[in-house]
Amino acid sequence: MNQPATPEVSTPHGKIMLVGLGPGSHDYLTARARAAIAEADTVIGYATYIRLVADLLDGKEVIKKAMTEELDRAIEALERARQGKKVALISSGDAGVYGMAGPTFEVLFQAGWTPESDIQVEIIPGASALNTCAALVGAPLTHDFCAISLSDLLTPWPTIARRLDAVAYADFVVALYNPKSGRRTRQIQEAQRIFLRHRNPQTPVAVVKSAYRPKQRITFTTLQNLADADVGMLTTVLIGNSNTYIKHGLMITPRGYANKYDVEIGRSGARDGEKAGHSLSTGLNGWLAAIHGSDKTPAELAKQYRLPEDYIAAVLSEPLEVEDETVSDGVAE
Amino acid sequence: MNQPATPEVSTPHGKIMLVGLGPGSHDYLTARARAAIAEADTVIGYATYIRLVADLLDGKEVIKKAMTEELDRAIEALERARQGKKVALISSGDAGVYGMAGPTFEVLFQAGWTPESDIQVEIIPGASALNTCAALVGAPLTHDFCAISLSDLLTPWPTIARRLDAVAYADFVVALYNPKSGRRTRQIQEAQRIFLRHRNPQTPVAVVKSAYRPKQRITFTTLQNLADADVGMLTTVLIGNSNTYIKHGLMITPRGYANKYDVEIGRSGARDGEKAGHSLSTGLNGWLAAIHGSDKTPAELAKQYRLPEDYIAAVLSEPLEVEDETVSDGVAE
Repeated sequence: MNQPATPEVSTPHGKIMLVGLGPGSHDYLTARARAAIAEADTVIGYATYIRLVADLLDGKEVIKKAMTEELDRAIEALERARQGKKVALISSGDAGVYGMAGPTFEVLFQAGWTPESDIQVEIIPGASALNTCAALVGAPLTHDFCAISLSDLLTPWPTIARRLDAVAYADFVVALYNPKSGRRTRQIQEAQRIFLRHRNPQTPVAVVKSAYRPKQRITFTTLQNLADADVGMLTTVLIGNSNTYIKHGLMITPRGYANKYDVEIGRSGARDGEKAGHSLSTGLNGWLAAIHGSDKTPAELAKQYRLPEDYIAAVLSEPLEVEDETVSDGVAE
Repeated sequence: MNQPATPEVSTPHGKIMLVGLGPGSHDYLTARARAAIAEADTVIGYATYIRLVADLLDGKEVIKKAMTEELDRAIEALERARQGKKVALISSGDAGVYGMAGPTFEVLFQAGWTPESDIQVEIIPGASALNTCAALVGAPLTHDFCAISLSDLLTPWPTIARRLDAVAYADFVVALYNPKSGRRTRQIQEAQRIFLRHRNPQTPVAVVKSAYRPKQRITFTTLQNLADADVGMLTTVLIGNSNTYIKHGLMITPRGYANKYDVEIGRSGARDGEKAGHSLSTGLNGWLAAIHGSDKTPAELAKQYRLPEDYIAAVLSEPLEVEDETVSDGVAE
């Protein structure tokens, strides 16, 4: 995505910068996002996002587009870049997360653009809505999580429903993007119904509106009452996993996974037997040893561990390897 | 999480700031993250993270901890805050995503802290590894995605395996955190095996090491070759969904979901019949109308749409409501 080493033409090279603004407040702009806007000749974005950075736009060409005109925004950016202009395409959150990066590359590829052409493309990452909403409510994302958009404008409902069902079953923390709009009011009810197939009705839910903006509002509810919550276009919904709790007005997902299925804990109460910096006794190696040493059939083990029988059978078909326990280990982001 | 309106003591109030550094380069620090470090008396973090901001630490107390000493870091922060100090607990990426926010609240709660106490807590969100890695490889996260840590230091393997299987089936884009370490070498192989139960061996995979740092390295591979990729502690692995492709060295997940299951497309080839800004004909309302108008049994529909039979039956047990189509709609982050 760099400029060619030996430019063949003397016209100035255009540039498209896909800028993630984070939540929108200037405090949460990265230095690079701010510099990219300063560097731009033209700034293109949805009117609400343009407003968030209005005081940084003096002397620039500003093009406001409606919410649904994403391809138009990308086409305008390409036209300006072809004229040698530097263009900032701004998105709230992260330009790569349900943002402008996808539509922009679709337009660029259709126009025959390649990274070797004389239009440079740069993506400037930012904190997405799930990061900023999590920071406001406590520590809900300390364990595995996923993001699902409830918008069916570009995605068939069975695809969305299948994803909701899969992650509800597998106990992820879930961030729902685009949970509701003027017309789309039933999607959130269906999401609730699917989650209730697997999750406790008391599962904590945070509803965050306009995070880090003047109209910010945070409410806590439960899965049971989710359909009655005040949810709109500028709202992100965070649904906890089976260990998430709310205490003193904070939503917390504990890092250590105090699993509700006894069978996964192994030597119950033997936490003192676990070694710091080492895999759990119920980690991969301990689990491999347990199933290799078990008298049960793959079908019985599949039921016990709620895993596919063919996966268990494949693992059991291989000899048990004993791994080296002397190397140090750790957890990092 | 604000200071009490009427402080009861005259000693200075301590503060714990959980700072997400983003990828680590100063260009991607938010203004608030930089100000928080400037404001801090004490900065605590894993040695690698301390190094990333070394030039901002003049005159401050700096406490370096090992990777696995997360609770120690939180305890040190609390001790300093009780002395009235301002403490920045720094994490790479987002402090809330597999970061220090969780362990810190665990320690604070155990010590009897409440948000009304005289120690203020602030979480400063940043771009997480999945955001920054995505920005470097193209636009892989334009559709639903999830983050799964392969570390079994605190999570039983069956929990991790169940999550991998669920999201492979439901066709998420997946970011694998902590994919491998000195001792944990087999988890990534098991993840590959589970994914191959559901996904095409040619599914694109990006392997990103040390994003936005001097030793940054990006390689593309396929699910089939994932186990052979050069993956380590500072690596994030991005696995595409069934629509993700690599073109001109960029990994792209198209925003519109060109679904591989014909049945979900509905009026095939009738894209011209879809209305901009409106739900797809295969969106929730279209799908509800289709199953209500079908002669098939719930079991047959469940198989057709790969959804649970009891969900289909519950939907069919309710009358079909026709929604108002006159309200405008849109997609936002």
